[in-house]
Amino acid sequence: MKIGIVGGTGREGRGLAVRWAKAGHDVFIGSRQADKGAAKAAEFAKEFGVSIQGADNIAACEHAELIVVTVPYGAHRPTFDSIKNVVGDKVIVDITVPLQPPKVRSVNLPEGQAAALEARALLNEGARLVAALHHISSEHLSNPAHTFDCDVLVCGDDKDARASVISLVADLGLRGIDAGVLKNAIALESITPVLLHINRRYKSVGSGIRITGIPETE
Amino acid sequence: MKIGIVGGTGREGRGLAVRWAKAGHDVFIGSRQADKGAAKAAEFAKEFGVSIQGADNIAACEHAELIVVTVPYGAHRPTFDSIKNVVGDKVIVDITVPLQPPKVRSVNLPEGQAAALEARALLNEGARLVAALHHISSEHLSNPAHTFDCDVLVCGDDKDARASVISLVADLGLRGIDAGVLKNAIALESITPVLLHINRRYKSVGSGIRITGIPETE
Repeated sequence: MKIGIVGGTGREGRGLAVRWAKAGHDVFIGSRQADKGAAKAAEFAKEFGVSIQGADNIAACEHAELIVVTVPYGAHRPTFDSIKNVVGDKVIVDITVPLQPPKVRSVNLPEGQAAALEARALLNEGARLVAALHHISSEHLSNPAHTFDCDVLVCGDDKDARASVISLVADLGLRGIDAGVLKNAIALESITPVLLHINRRYKSVGSGIRITGIPETE
Repeated sequence: MKIGIVGGTGREGRGLAVRWAKAGHDVFIGSRQADKGAAKAAEFAKEFGVSIQGADNIAACEHAELIVVTVPYGAHRPTFDSIKNVVGDKVIVDITVPLQPPKVRSVNLPEGQAAALEARALLNEGARLVAALHHISSEHLSNPAHTFDCDVLVCGDDKDARASVISLVADLGLRGIDAGVLKNAIALESITPVLLHINRRYKSVGSGIRITGIPETE
């Protein structure tokens, strides 16, 4: 699948791009500056011996069949504003967690209750938004050798879009779990500060969550 | 420990009372009507061959060293109003999830963002409130033979109170995890609708969550 990663030059973008490229996907990373996107793509490709393209965020969206947005919460609104007219009805995955430094270990509900709900309000009618990947430590994600011991909860109002994302999550080496409607992003995003607290309390690098008691997938 | 269970005549109350009584705790269940509390206590005690007392909610709070409140969200505010002057500085555990039937598979944030935050606003200064046990299926809890395969997240602003509750959770046969400040109840309460969605989606009776990647407790 052609995957575009908006804001893909950071640690999360690096981990996603490399893992998906290794799984055989056509990955294109975007940045606000096209030259930075291209340089980072070349850097990641060389480091891991895979093929990754890069340019600006608009190019990443235009190239892609499915778009992943990974930006700090402070850049969330301007980023969605900048891409909303080029995403069409492609599936868009928002992995933003609305952390409020320095209090990152305490739930901070944004004005719209969830970053993903704010994104939906910014996008045009018919946009297919999914929220996922809030609980994967960037430390673990950016290490292509790391084997995950946690699940990824995936929510969105379009069931087929959720299924596409669950399938892509499997290609990262993770089990994706259908977590229901987009409004459930309130839960998904707010678990992250709890995990950050748990990391400090239990001296863990990257705690995660696993769903238990699901007969079908176990 | 002397444990008082406010609203303890329902399924959750039954499961908690019987499991804690079996673990050797002195359990007292409360109801709005003293005779109902007493009758249910006698019924549970006889069914499982344990000793459980019962009367009204005020008596349960006065008898207890630690108080657990388990009422439907609709009764949450009046219940806390009715007990707030008898709880003193005893630890109070709120296990309420603000579900909004019939849409119980979609997160419903209450006016105060979390039932536990609303409870704190109702209680007197100095009250030691903890929120926990939101994710245990009442089906599993009320079956004393069931072995759990999930964790219990415990949050509250008083670290010692969290530790007491984590210890009591162990006596139910569950691993309690310190989940940080009371504000994190926003996350804990909102996970429940996600689990209810997962139960329907994956044909599960009682899905739960487990925290992975914590070296200290594994």
